[in-house]
Amino acid sequence: MAKAIRLAQRGLYTTSPNPRVGCVIVSPDNHCVGEGAHLKAGTPHAEVHALKQAGDLAKGATAYVTLEPCSHFGRTPPCAEALIHAQVKRVVIAMTDPNPNVSGNGIRKLQNAGIEVTSDVMSAEAGALNPGFVKRMLTGKPYVRVKQGISLDGKIALKNGVSQWITGPEARQDVHKYRAQSCAVLTGSGTVEADNPSLLVRPSEAKLSAYPLDTLRQPVRVVVDGQSRLASHYQCFNDGFPTYVASTLHHADTKQGHYLKVNAKNNKVDLNHLMLQLGAMQFNEVWVEAGPGLSGALFEAGEVDEFICYQAPMLLGDQARSMVSLPPFTAIDQAVSLTLLESRHVGEDLKLRYRVNNSAL
Amino acid sequence: MAKAIRLAQRGLYTTSPNPRVGCVIVSPDNHCVGEGAHLKAGTPHAEVHALKQAGDLAKGATAYVTLEPCSHFGRTPPCAEALIHAQVKRVVIAMTDPNPNVSGNGIRKLQNAGIEVTSDVMSAEAGALNPGFVKRMLTGKPYVRVKQGISLDGKIALKNGVSQWITGPEARQDVHKYRAQSCAVLTGSGTVEADNPSLLVRPSEAKLSAYPLDTLRQPVRVVVDGQSRLASHYQCFNDGFPTYVASTLHHADTKQGHYLKVNAKNNKVDLNHLMLQLGAMQFNEVWVEAGPGLSGALFEAGEVDEFICYQAPMLLGDQARSMVSLPPFTAIDQAVSLTLLESRHVGEDLKLRYRVNNSAL
Repeated sequence: MAKAIRLAQRGLYTTSPNPRVGCVIVSPDNHCVGEGAHLKAGTPHAEVHALKQAGDLAKGATAYVTLEPCSHFGRTPPCAEALIHAQVKRVVIAMTDPNPNVSGNGIRKLQNAGIEVTSDVMSAEAGALNPGFVKRMLTGKPYVRVKQGISLDGKIALKNGVSQWITGPEARQDVHKYRAQSCAVLTGSGTVEADNPSLLVRPSEAKLSAYPLDTLRQPVRVVVDGQSRLASHYQCFNDGFPTYVASTLHHADTKQGHYLKVNAKNNKVDLNHLMLQLGAMQFNEVWVEAGPGLSGALFEAGEVDEFICYQAPMLLGDQARSMVSLPPFTAIDQAVSLTLLESRHVGEDLKLRYRVNNSAL
Repeated sequence: MAKAIRLAQRGLYTTSPNPRVGCVIVSPDNHCVGEGAHLKAGTPHAEVHALKQAGDLAKGATAYVTLEPCSHFGRTPPCAEALIHAQVKRVVIAMTDPNPNVSGNGIRKLQNAGIEVTSDVMSAEAGALNPGFVKRMLTGKPYVRVKQGISLDGKIALKNGVSQWITGPEARQDVHKYRAQSCAVLTGSGTVEADNPSLLVRPSEAKLSAYPLDTLRQPVRVVVDGQSRLASHYQCFNDGFPTYVASTLHHADTKQGHYLKVNAKNNKVDLNHLMLQLGAMQFNEVWVEAGPGLSGALFEAGEVDEFICYQAPMLLGDQARSMVSLPPFTAIDQAVSLTLLESRHVGEDLKLRYRVNNSAL
C-alpha cells in the first residue's frame, strides 16, 4: 500500500478535479506484476493502468488501491468491474470513497462478485493525498490553504509597503509547488493593485522533478474584488491564462476576466458563498496568497483549513504591516487557534504549517 | 573533556560572577581518579575538588579542564600551582582564559613546570558554558538574552492589554530556568506598572532537578525607569530581594530599591552605559523580560546577544500589541537580522532561539 501511495503522488499536479490514486497488483507468489497511477481526468484510472500491465497475471492476484474503486460509469468505465473481469482474488483498499452517495458501492460490487475486500489500510496517508477532493465530496467546498511570508514579528511589509524580499528564494520555490498542486490561487484586489502578480507556476522555480507531463497545468486565478474596482491592465488579465473576478456586482465576462457573481455580506464578498461556488467549479485545493485583509476575513469566515507561514529571521518593528486583520479581541480565547503540523527550515526561513482549529470565529 | 563539560554544568545556577568549570583527572591506565566542578564563588575551583579526590593518584595523570587554570591568587590559591604540586603529567584545556590580561598565564606556568599542555579541545562547547563570563571579560558588558512570549503574528497582548496567557505553562517553566541561571533580570517601568511581576525564580516552576545547593540564588532585578516615576508599592520593591532602579536622575538608595545612576541619551536611559554598569557589577548573564519599548530599544542600541521567543499557535490580529517597537524602516535590509540557533516544541508553543546579527542598527 505504501508503494501505491507513492504511485498516487505522481498525479499530485495533474489529476484534479479527480483524486490522486495509485494501484499495485501483487501475484500469489508475492511479485509486483502491475502498477498504475491516475494522472489526468479523462485518462485511465490507476487500476486500469495496473491491470493492463499485469495482463493474465492479475488472475488470482491481490490489488492494492489507495481509494475505493469506482462503481459507476463516468468518463471511463467502472474500475470495480475491471477488477472483477480480471479475476483478482483480493482487493485491499486504503480508504472508502468520501462521496457519501457512492461510498461503499465499489466494495459491495467487488464482494458480490466473490472478491475478498480489506479496507482502511493506511487510510490516514491515503486521505492526505487528497485533502481537497475529500473535503469537497463531504462539504461541497475546497480545501483552503492560506500562505504568508512574514518576519518573526508577524509583519508582511514595511510601513512604506516594501515587502521584497522578506523571505528567501527557497520559500518562494516551495510556494510554486503549492501553486502547481492547487486548482485555484485566490487573492484580493489590493494585492493585485499593489504587486500586479502573475500567481502562475514558473516550472523552473518550482523544480517539479516529479512532474510527469509535458505541459504544466496552471491554477485558475480568482481575485476577490467585491466592488469590481480593478482596472483591466493588470498582468493576470492579460497573460492568456484564466482569471475569475469574484464580485458582488453583475457583470458580463470580458476577454480579460471571467466574472463570478457572489452574494454580498456586510457589503463585501460573502466568503462562505464564494467557497461553495469554487467547490461547484470542482476546485479541490485553493491556495491563498493575499494581504492581511482577505487573509483575516477568511479566518473570520471559518474558511481556512491550513495556514502556511514562511517566517524570516528578522524583526521589522511595530510600525510595519501586520499579517492578519482581525476584530479587536477582548480575551485570549477569542484568538484564531492553530495546531502546528510541521516546522522545518526552508533556506534561511522557517516553514510553519498549521491546522486551523476553529472553523469559524 | 565531554565529562568535564557535563560536570561544569552543575554550576549553571550558582557560580557567577565566576565561570562554570569542570575538571576530570585520568590516571595513566585510563581510569577516572578525580572529578570536580566549581559551584560557587569563594569555594574551591573544579581542579582543587578533582585533585583532592585523586590524592596520590594525580601523580603522572592527565587533567582535563574546561577553562585554563588560573595563575593568580584570588579568593582561592592558583589552580595552576595546585596541578604542578600534584605532579600531573599533562593538562588538556578546552579554552584559554578569555580575560586578555591573564590569558595564557596559566598555560605558561604549567609548561614552565614541565607539564605537557594541550589546548583548544571542544572549545566551542566550553565557551557555550560561559557566554556571559566570556563576553564580560572581553567587553566589560554582560551577555544579554531578550525573551518574549508571542502569538504567531508577533503580538504580546490584546488591544485591551490582556496577555495572560498567550504561551503555555511549559514555556513559563523554561523561563524560570533562564531566570535562575542569570545574574540579573532586566525589565522596564511599564511592565512593572502593568503586571507588577516578581521576576524571581520559583523553584517549583523551574523544576531545577540539577540544582546542587540548598538555597536558590535569586537574580538581581533591574528596572529601567529613566525618570524615576515608579511608586514604591510594587512587589519587586517589597519582597526582601534586591531590585535596582536604573534612572537618569540622582537618588539616594531607599529601603525599597537601590538606585543606579545611568547616563541619559535622548532623554532616556543610555542602554550602552547601563550595560557597562551591569558588567561592572559583575553580572555575567542578563535576562530581559520587558515590553515592546525596552526590548526594541535594546535591539536598536545593539545590546542584545540572544533573542528567545516562545511562539504560541494562535493569531491575535493587527489590532493587538506588536512585540518590538523599532523605527519606521524604509528598506528590508534595515531590519534587525537574526540567525535561528534552535527551534523546538515547548508544550504547545514553539521555542525559537536566535543569535542577533547586527550589533547595532
